[in-house]
Amino acid sequence: MARRRAQEEEDDDDDAEESVERVFEGREVPRWREQVTARALAVSALLGTMFSVIVMKLNLTTGIIPSLNVSAGLLGFFLLTSWTKLLAKAGFTGVMPFTRQENTVVQTCVVACSGIAFSGMQCTPCPSTVRGFGSYMFAMSERISEQSGETWDPHNIKNPGLGWMIGFLFIVSFLGLFSVVPLRKIMIIDYKLIYPSGTATAHLINSFHTPQGAKLAKRQVKTLGKFFAGSFAWGFFQWFYTAGEGCGFMSFPTLGLEAYRQKFFFDFSTTYVGVGMICPYLVNASVLLGGVVSWGIMWPLIEQKKGDWYPADLKPSSLRGIVGYRVFVSIALILGDGLYNFLKVMTRTVTALVVQVRGMMSEPTLPISDGGGGGSESLPAAEETFDDRRRTELFLKDQIPNTLALSAYLVIAVVSIATVPHIFHQLRWYHVAASYVIAPVLAFCNAYGCGLTDWSLATTYGKLAIFTVGAWAAASDSDGSGSGGIIAGLAACGVMIGIVSTASDLTQDFKTGYMTLASPRSMFVSQVIGTAMGCVVAPSVFWLFYNAFRDIGLPGSEYPSPNALVYRNMAILGVQGLGSLPRHCLDLCIAFFTAAIAINLARDLAGARAAVYIPLPMAMAIPFYLGPYFGIDMCIGSLVRLVWDRLDPARAKAFAPPVASGLICGDGIWTVPQSVLALAGVKPPICMKFLSRTANAKVDAFLHS
Amino acid sequence: MARRRAQEEEDDDDDAEESVERVFEGREVPRWREQVTARALAVSALLGTMFSVIVMKLNLTTGIIPSLNVSAGLLGFFLLTSWTKLLAKAGFTGVMPFTRQENTVVQTCVVACSGIAFSGMQCTPCPSTVRGFGSYMFAMSERISEQSGETWDPHNIKNPGLGWMIGFLFIVSFLGLFSVVPLRKIMIIDYKLIYPSGTATAHLINSFHTPQGAKLAKRQVKTLGKFFAGSFAWGFFQWFYTAGEGCGFMSFPTLGLEAYRQKFFFDFSTTYVGVGMICPYLVNASVLLGGVVSWGIMWPLIEQKKGDWYPADLKPSSLRGIVGYRVFVSIALILGDGLYNFLKVMTRTVTALVVQVRGMMSEPTLPISDGGGGGSESLPAAEETFDDRRRTELFLKDQIPNTLALSAYLVIAVVSIATVPHIFHQLRWYHVAASYVIAPVLAFCNAYGCGLTDWSLATTYGKLAIFTVGAWAAASDSDGSGSGGIIAGLAACGVMIGIVSTASDLTQDFKTGYMTLASPRSMFVSQVIGTAMGCVVAPSVFWLFYNAFRDIGLPGSEYPSPNALVYRNMAILGVQGLGSLPRHCLDLCIAFFTAAIAINLARDLAGARAAVYIPLPMAMAIPFYLGPYFGIDMCIGSLVRLVWDRLDPARAKAFAPPVASGLICGDGIWTVPQSVLALAGVKPPICMKFLSRTANAKVDAFLHS
Repeated sequence: MARRRAQEEEDDDDDAEESVERVFEGREVPRWREQVTARALAVSALLGTMFSVIVMKLNLTTGIIPSLNVSAGLLGFFLLTSWTKLLAKAGFTGVMPFTRQENTVVQTCVVACSGIAFSGMQCTPCPSTVRGFGSYMFAMSERISEQSGETWDPHNIKNPGLGWMIGFLFIVSFLGLFSVVPLRKIMIIDYKLIYPSGTATAHLINSFHTPQGAKLAKRQVKTLGKFFAGSFAWGFFQWFYTAGEGCGFMSFPTLGLEAYRQKFFFDFSTTYVGVGMICPYLVNASVLLGGVVSWGIMWPLIEQKKGDWYPADLKPSSLRGIVGYRVFVSIALILGDGLYNFLKVMTRTVTALVVQVRGMMSEPTLPISDGGGGGSESLPAAEETFDDRRRTELFLKDQIPNTLALSAYLVIAVVSIATVPHIFHQLRWYHVAASYVIAPVLAFCNAYGCGLTDWSLATTYGKLAIFTVGAWAAASDSDGSGSGGIIAGLAACGVMIGIVSTASDLTQDFKTGYMTLASPRSMFVSQVIGTAMGCVVAPSVFWLFYNAFRDIGLPGSEYPSPNALVYRNMAILGVQGLGSLPRHCLDLCIAFFTAAIAINLARDLAGARAAVYIPLPMAMAIPFYLGPYFGIDMCIGSLVRLVWDRLDPARAKAFAPPVASGLICGDGIWTVPQSVLALAGVKPPICMKFLSRTANAKVDAFLHS
Repeated sequence: MARRRAQEEEDDDDDAEESVERVFEGREVPRWREQVTARALAVSALLGTMFSVIVMKLNLTTGIIPSLNVSAGLLGFFLLTSWTKLLAKAGFTGVMPFTRQENTVVQTCVVACSGIAFSGMQCTPCPSTVRGFGSYMFAMSERISEQSGETWDPHNIKNPGLGWMIGFLFIVSFLGLFSVVPLRKIMIIDYKLIYPSGTATAHLINSFHTPQGAKLAKRQVKTLGKFFAGSFAWGFFQWFYTAGEGCGFMSFPTLGLEAYRQKFFFDFSTTYVGVGMICPYLVNASVLLGGVVSWGIMWPLIEQKKGDWYPADLKPSSLRGIVGYRVFVSIALILGDGLYNFLKVMTRTVTALVVQVRGMMSEPTLPISDGGGGGSESLPAAEETFDDRRRTELFLKDQIPNTLALSAYLVIAVVSIATVPHIFHQLRWYHVAASYVIAPVLAFCNAYGCGLTDWSLATTYGKLAIFTVGAWAAASDSDGSGSGGIIAGLAACGVMIGIVSTASDLTQDFKTGYMTLASPRSMFVSQVIGTAMGCVVAPSVFWLFYNAFRDIGLPGSEYPSPNALVYRNMAILGVQGLGSLPRHCLDLCIAFFTAAIAINLARDLAGARAAVYIPLPMAMAIPFYLGPYFGIDMCIGSLVRLVWDRLDPARAKAFAPPVASGLICGDGIWTVPQSVLALAGVKPPICMKFLSRTANAKVDAFLHS
């Protein structure tokens, strides 16, 4: 029964796609001020905070963050419909109906606040307000510095502080918004870029506001709620058994003690099972493959060279030992992948732009027919559909004056140039100024490339900034050691990522707004408000984690924050070169850097059929440092999804995202009470310990003595 | 879809019940020798051994054994249909088709061998060949004797030995069969007794041999197989973490360490979750209630009187301390319940017999319309249906000469009287002879009562024998101490249970055979063969357990064998009286003995509606000694069943028994490789240990020192 119903709705949805706006024809589109309502902002703040916690957790554990758009959409829809219904039942008259434009505002605001950005396709680490804390921001800290094996030097350390983090974010986060505003018409109307994630979100929101869609959404929310509760309860249950280090389900040697030592185990995390259900099979398989290649083969082999390739008397976390291989080979893979994709996307961007501009000269509205997934929106230019006409009309109605955008950009840039060097005294005003000159160009490129391929290159631009600004600052460093370049590079990375990623995010939002008839003005306002929320919420959430979990950032802890170490070492690399690497590490790095490019090339040259069997180097890189355990979780998620897809494809398609989101969010939100308990000094009562038989015999003898 | 299909089959099955024999009218009934085929016996031996292992495991853990008839039926049907199909595919011609009569033979033989007797309604401990090992047989051993706190005395000990156990079983197990043979026509044809379990088995077998039934059975077998595999794998997985005492999932303090100390925890046993799914809700709830009353309230209170009510310096397992309260209150409940049901069933038996005999004088075939579940077989006497005529005709075709039965009984009795005193020298020949004079009467009563109520009183008769023969043997004991009465009483219990329970089992089988047109002769032969198998298999399986798990019979171990201790203490009670009980224990015993009777009385006096809220004292008694942990398992099973029944009653009805059987059998069969590993000296590699936070801190300090 239920299955058939899901199928029907599926069909209806497909039909509806033919002309969405016919379905909504009778409904009036509210003015933009009525789209950005107080209730929408309240719901946004709530969800924004919730997703900030979840993303922060993911960020500090592995850095792999799946697309949570669906759950944000579902929950936003659910909260606002419940709210309006409740008010109507309570007898309030004149309650404004909940429109899809308002829904889009919520979605935009939540995404801007929590940075659950449009990365549906990739499931790879991708920064934003929140995400910076797992990478460049935390990378400046003393704790990460210690792990990098540097000699202690206050000049290359900037410890987390609530005040400067909020200030810095406020200064750098809004520039991206203003830089992209003047370009929105070109991207959306003229170039008709696809923006797969933005389009998908729009479809989601549109479907909620049809009668069948609302019914399906209700059931999806119910499913999400169930798995949310289960996952939360499971997190709570696990907590009781974590009285000490090496206690609890996270230390469960599911595949045996020997495998556990090489980090092969299932860690009972519902989060990454959920992530595995959302992420494409290829990502999950790549993560596991990376884990097997590194922790299954390479590291054990290199560990046998201990005393030969690297000194045997190092402390275990030293970068001059085995950890060095893990970190730098990982960086090599990430950089190789990044470089390849940078070149590829840039080539496509430029080529497409040239075609576009040439075409524009003869024909005003030539759509782009190649690239991306070929979504339903890329229609032949000749016949403009009803949907297109209606959407374009409304998109062009509310304007944001270009002069406003431009002057705001200039004002903020000036303020920023004046203040950022006060926060990071390693950075000079001209470093910042230079960034702000180049940034708009890169922002445009990224927004355009993202529209074509759904791939945001923000991290790559950030890495570029690390190397260029880092080296520049090191050369002009006041104390001559050049060590200030590390902080300078990381800060510049933050500035660059801030501008470039918000640019592509907002353009995605404009696309969503275009397809839901939401006003560009309300989109812009809600993104501004969301970003402002994020600038306060994200540092606060990080501050909570930082104070509650004292071992944050340490390897082997619950929150190892791998990207922070990776980013810091990139900055060190940029400033100091490759001198201190252990033996053969550089050779390995070069090999893997080349391999990353070769694999990517192979993927692109192979047919679509063969491509699904070629792994993603970026996804492979993450377990190189962390170990394969979360890859095992993700593959279990994949397996569940695979079996479900086989048994009941229609239901799986409709309900796997809510199930996965429930799993991820429940476990993520459990972090809040968990950290409150930690702050309050409440400790779990029991330790679930795993001992080898011989160790157990000793312990038993000790306990009974 | 699947749901509807299950519903349809359900309906068909109901229709078919109207006249089953019309459905089978075209099919020839094979001669009795063609019913007892070699392939049927091979399958019986296989399944009989398998179920012996499972029942032995259940028996030695708690003594609660659910009805496994359905799984035995399913597996028998599956194995034989697969076998005949395979042969047919392999090109063998002239393969006899698999008939329902042959199926009945397999069922009878497996039940006789493994003692998975007809106790579907009760789910309470009930003895048979296999079950004796958990009660009277193991109760004779030195290990149980040690726990009873007796001074060591070789005169009241008989340790397990493969030779004497097989010999003893062969001598006593066949008498019951011969005692009931002359009565079968009276029970089945004349009295038309209902035998609810036998009838249910017949329905099951009949349904397998209709086309829809075969299809459903196939899907049920598949379900059973899946859960079997899962349960087996889970057992295997758990094994790895049990490197020492107090290790593994069995020691998981799921509800906290404090609750664990009072044995409140979920022990991750799939077996008892499965048992909970099969047993009626009332049984499960009663077990949990018993656990809460005893381990949640009474024992903690009594433990506070330590040093006052009983000495504080006893060793923890001493019966003069807290364990004494647990064991004797438990015995009081069991005896109270037993006495009440004995009187009740006897009253009903005698009353019904009187009515019957009076009625018989006027009308030859008056059926019994009251009692039991009022199955579809109790029809008005006037209109004899087609089914009745056809079944009666075939039931009366093959006869077993009464003279043969009688002379066999006499021969075996003589052999038995001559040999049993050689096995148990505490028993005199006249004790055995007296048993054999009374036994046929009790056997008839039990077979009759079981036909009315589905309640076998075999254990009650066994307990009667413990007290009477025990006291008698003690009085005439050679060394004057009377301690030989313990072994004598337990041995007499074995003799009595052997006769009485096989009598009711065989009559149930005759009923099944009557309804599936299986010849009484083939029923009888297959029961003889099955019993012979059981006499070899059961002691061998026990021997395997006894040698593989060295802590068998010890409290707190995996196989505490609670009934052995209970039976031994009943024997001691019979011989030595109540002198050595700790303070107030006798008062408590009397209170609970009375309560058991009162509760039973209340159940019978209350309406059917209120009765389902009144607990079963017998089920409450088991956790009094063992603790409530398996009651928690069972209630989880109940909960699963309850939710399933709510969501999809048709599917739950069809598939809950296979699921539960799969869970029970998989975990049970895992015991075989587990014991082989133990015998081979292979030890699990890891210990999953649970420590309090303070203990963990100490252990960590010790491990790092």
